[in-house]
Amino acid sequence: MGCKNCCSICLQCLFGYETNVMLVINNKGVGALFRLIQFLIIAYVAVYVCWVQRAYQDTDSVISSVSTKVKGNILTNSSAAGVHVWDVPEYVIPPQGENTFFVLTNVIPTLGQRQSKCPEIPSEVTKCESDSDCKEGYSEVHGNGVQTGRCVQYSDTIKTCEVQAWCPLENDTVIPKPALLGAAEDFTVLIKNNVQYPKFKFRKRNILHHINSTYLKNCTFDRKTDPHCPIFRLGDMVTEAGEDFSVMALKGGIIGIFIDWNCDLDFPERFCIPKYSFSRLDNKNPENNVAPGYNFRFAKYYKTNESTETRTLIKAFGIRFDVIVFGMVTAVCDWVMLTCMKDRDLYAKHKFIHLNQNGDSVPLVS
Amino acid sequence: MGCKNCCSICLQCLFGYETNVMLVINNKGVGALFRLIQFLIIAYVAVYVCWVQRAYQDTDSVISSVSTKVKGNILTNSSAAGVHVWDVPEYVIPPQGENTFFVLTNVIPTLGQRQSKCPEIPSEVTKCESDSDCKEGYSEVHGNGVQTGRCVQYSDTIKTCEVQAWCPLENDTVIPKPALLGAAEDFTVLIKNNVQYPKFKFRKRNILHHINSTYLKNCTFDRKTDPHCPIFRLGDMVTEAGEDFSVMALKGGIIGIFIDWNCDLDFPERFCIPKYSFSRLDNKNPENNVAPGYNFRFAKYYKTNESTETRTLIKAFGIRFDVIVFGMVTAVCDWVMLTCMKDRDLYAKHKFIHLNQNGDSVPLVS
Amino acid sequence: MGCKNCCSICLQCLFGYETNVMLVINNKGVGALFRLIQFLIIAYVAVYVCWVQRAYQDTDSVISSVSTKVKGNILTNSSAAGVHVWDVPEYVIPPQGENTFFVLTNVIPTLGQRQSKCPEIPSEVTKCESDSDCKEGYSEVHGNGVQTGRCVQYSDTIKTCEVQAWCPLENDTVIPKPALLGAAEDFTVLIKNNVQYPKFKFRKRNILHHINSTYLKNCTFDRKTDPHCPIFRLGDMVTEAGEDFSVMALKGGIIGIFIDWNCDLDFPERFCIPKYSFSRLDNKNPENNVAPGYNFRFAKYYKTNESTETRTLIKAFGIRFDVIVFGMVTAVCDWVMLTCMKDRDLYAKHKFIHLNQNGDSVPLVS
Repeated sequence: MGCKNCCSICLQCLFGYETNVMLVINNKGVGALFRLIQFLIIAYVAVYVCWVQRAYQDTDSVISSVSTKVKGNILTNSSAAGVHVWDVPEYVIPPQGENTFFVLTNVIPTLGQRQSKCPEIPSEVTKCESDSDCKEGYSEVHGNGVQTGRCVQYSDTIKTCEVQAWCPLENDTVIPKPALLGAAEDFTVLIKNNVQYPKFKFRKRNILHHINSTYLKNCTFDRKTDPHCPIFRLGDMVTEAGEDFSVMALKGGIIGIFIDWNCDLDFPERFCIPKYSFSRLDNKNPENNVAPGYNFRFAKYYKTNESTETRTLIKAFGIRFDVIVFGMVTAVCDWVMLTCMKDRDLYAKHKFIHLNQNGDSVPLVS
Repeated sequence: MGCKNCCSICLQCLFGYETNVMLVINNKGVGALFRLIQFLIIAYVAVYVCWVQRAYQDTDSVISSVSTKVKGNILTNSSAAGVHVWDVPEYVIPPQGENTFFVLTNVIPTLGQRQSKCPEIPSEVTKCESDSDCKEGYSEVHGNGVQTGRCVQYSDTIKTCEVQAWCPLENDTVIPKPALLGAAEDFTVLIKNNVQYPKFKFRKRNILHHINSTYLKNCTFDRKTDPHCPIFRLGDMVTEAGEDFSVMALKGGIIGIFIDWNCDLDFPERFCIPKYSFSRLDNKNPENNVAPGYNFRFAKYYKTNESTETRTLIKAFGIRFDVIVFGMVTAVCDWVMLTCMKDRDLYAKHKFIHLNQNGDSVPLVS
Repeated sequence: MGCKNCCSICLQCLFGYETNVMLVINNKGVGALFRLIQFLIIAYVAVYVCWVQRAYQDTDSVISSVSTKVKGNILTNSSAAGVHVWDVPEYVIPPQGENTFFVLTNVIPTLGQRQSKCPEIPSEVTKCESDSDCKEGYSEVHGNGVQTGRCVQYSDTIKTCEVQAWCPLENDTVIPKPALLGAAEDFTVLIKNNVQYPKFKFRKRNILHHINSTYLKNCTFDRKTDPHCPIFRLGDMVTEAGEDFSVMALKGGIIGIFIDWNCDLDFPERFCIPKYSFSRLDNKNPENNVAPGYNFRFAKYYKTNESTETRTLIKAFGIRFDVIVFGMVTAVCDWVMLTCMKDRDLYAKHKFIHLNQNGDSVPLVS
């Protein structure tokens, strides 16, 4: 190696500047071909990809806006409430959401609640024998109000702690079966979804060009016959998600509506078409049966005279549909780069230095 | 090439270990310069970027919280409803949203609805001659209730199927023009936006340090004169999005408010300033004129006595503003890497092996 | 360099095909070892990573669904409103949100508002001497209505411009202190979070397998004793975020609940456990004290007779909890690539060409 002593080796090691060895082939034919290929690639990238397609950015995430409109009416005839028709403003709660809508499927209503005192719903912790079992001002976590400290008759045989609360209290131990609004299965929802990739100045909506008003008034999404219709029957979506609507309607749940806009903008715009899929997002069969379904409580407030406020409490079970929009443009430039790299191997046979078994070097090109 | 037979070539091919050839230049000056540059880069990365700036992570997505507050009042004087002042709790629906707010611009109210029976709004499918044209229990998709099976007088000349529904039915064939709340153009909205990049322990809000209460009480966002004021006039935003407020107010729509926090944290924090832009997210001029605008229905429920519930149904047209916060920290380390790579080309002239046209190799350095 | 003239150099430069010089070591032992290592890596990637683990995709973002349920009751006893018990449907507004819930902590109610005329709340711009100081039809930005053009008595000493508005007007200059619903600190919230990585066909929820109904009924999240309990005490979350609940309850704010599902799916599924953290998202101590806290206004509408509509206006201060779910699967393949790269350096000593100080080249291997 031509090094005289140890110190010299160290210095060489420390001050040695390392770099790749490059091979330059001075053959006019090869060189011209090489430059021509380089020029064609650069021209393609510069003119077509970057200027015509404006695809100089490799990827871009989707910006999406969603609006939904549910349609359908249900007539219920219960002994308590009589004949009642449920329309959209009553069963879609709240009336509008950004990417989500909730359809009521089952109801436990409690009418005529007002601020007063009443006995708690019986449970292990609310049953009592005498006032000493109750604690004034105590609010039991799973209770409905604040205890007054008195133990009162709930029924002929049961005494429970009295609470200050919205009375009468809700009793949600029995859930209506079948679900009161099980017929919501036949409701339809129009989903309007506009997407844009700002870097590519690309905009599109899920109501495609060829869809006209006549078609839109009568169509329903069907993966085989109407894959582009943006109107979905609730029951169909739940079935595609692998669930039984009548079962799910009882205690509620969450269904994801996935709209997939993964488009390759190298292809014409008409090939960029949304793909729909549906999946249950919450847990259907928890092994431990803890907190199943989806429900919440809300109230409608009334004043029958100036001073007294009453309310109807509604425990609402239902299906929340979350619209989740995907979309990522595939990398145009990566593909170009890869192609460039491959062309560089054109003369790969010239790149090798052969080292024989005995360790001697062999001329670069024989 | 020194290979004796075909088998030998295969073996050579199979057991040949390929690697780049590296060039080491043993020149103390060059080597020292090379090591010095290497040391400076490593020192910069280690001390300044990684230790002082804590920017060892190259990118981080933004965590954002948004809250909005609309201000403004409108007086309307319609023959039906009389003089009415609309304030925020009445025209912002729902009163709060996570990243979105809706401002009512046009209204079709239907007063005094109650559960009863009435003739359907005339349409191709609801008009009838006799009871046999109607079907008891049938709920037409675009209808307002459930048919009772009777055919009744809608007007002197028209008969339609009777429905069980919230009657009187809404008639939304005529949309108020100009929009009832077209003056919403002058409303303002304060947008409070806090962002954080947890990995960089960086927090900032869009109400910048130099903005004081006095300025905030009177300013309105203007791209030229007040680019940092977080109070936006609705009309200005719609104009910047390229729309006409009075037209958009008629049938509603969706406007995106984009807040761009793309900051390079290598620069001082004061250069990290949000950029606002506005764009219409839904489709303005659908070729097929299908389902334009943005509207939804909601109801206010009343009880004038214990038993009867009435409601005011409101078909609400308006503009939904979606606040979309962007932000990605630029990669510090990538830049460092690139710099390193460039310095490696310092002695690029030594990296070439020239191969003459006749195929003979030329000494590495002449 | 063997170039004859300037033109020749240029041509050489233009038509020279550059490529890296590769070294091939023809040693059967080294080659066999090299191929064996290559084979093992490919086999590992193909069989274990791609086929057994199905981890051929390097990363996948999380799809998450969140639902929340708050529990707790508060009894308030104010001179104005008397004894009142607040339950969930009253203090959680709106009753359901996608990834967010709001808990009321302080209230300024204004009862019995109806459309009429009344003097404005006194301020610098609303005080007047005579009718000429007021402007009919003018709606002051921070005002509560539309001016009628008259200057009327607000109190014995102060005159303000009269407005058409929902009267009586709200006076929010004094905020109740301590907060009316400061006891909301003891409320608990059950957060149900289901996540899925569709590419990996991986689903999990934050109610882990070992959590049973009995445990879930009584547990409260505690970082040390109950780190997997999905029920959180509001006060604890606010404390972990470094805030004082009683202070925050006065004017409201925004708390982020972060659920981190960053899992490495190379490890068994039971190691994939959510980590919770809490942080205040809005600005606590703005230097300029501009627009602090979080509040909004909403109204409950009543009709005491057919024609007159009254409402209760509520200025609601409270804490908005935003549930933010993170999650990204670590890149399996990147690690594999890195390992491959390292093995390529096995024979790094053969890669160097030494260049002496005098510029002469040295045989590739001595």
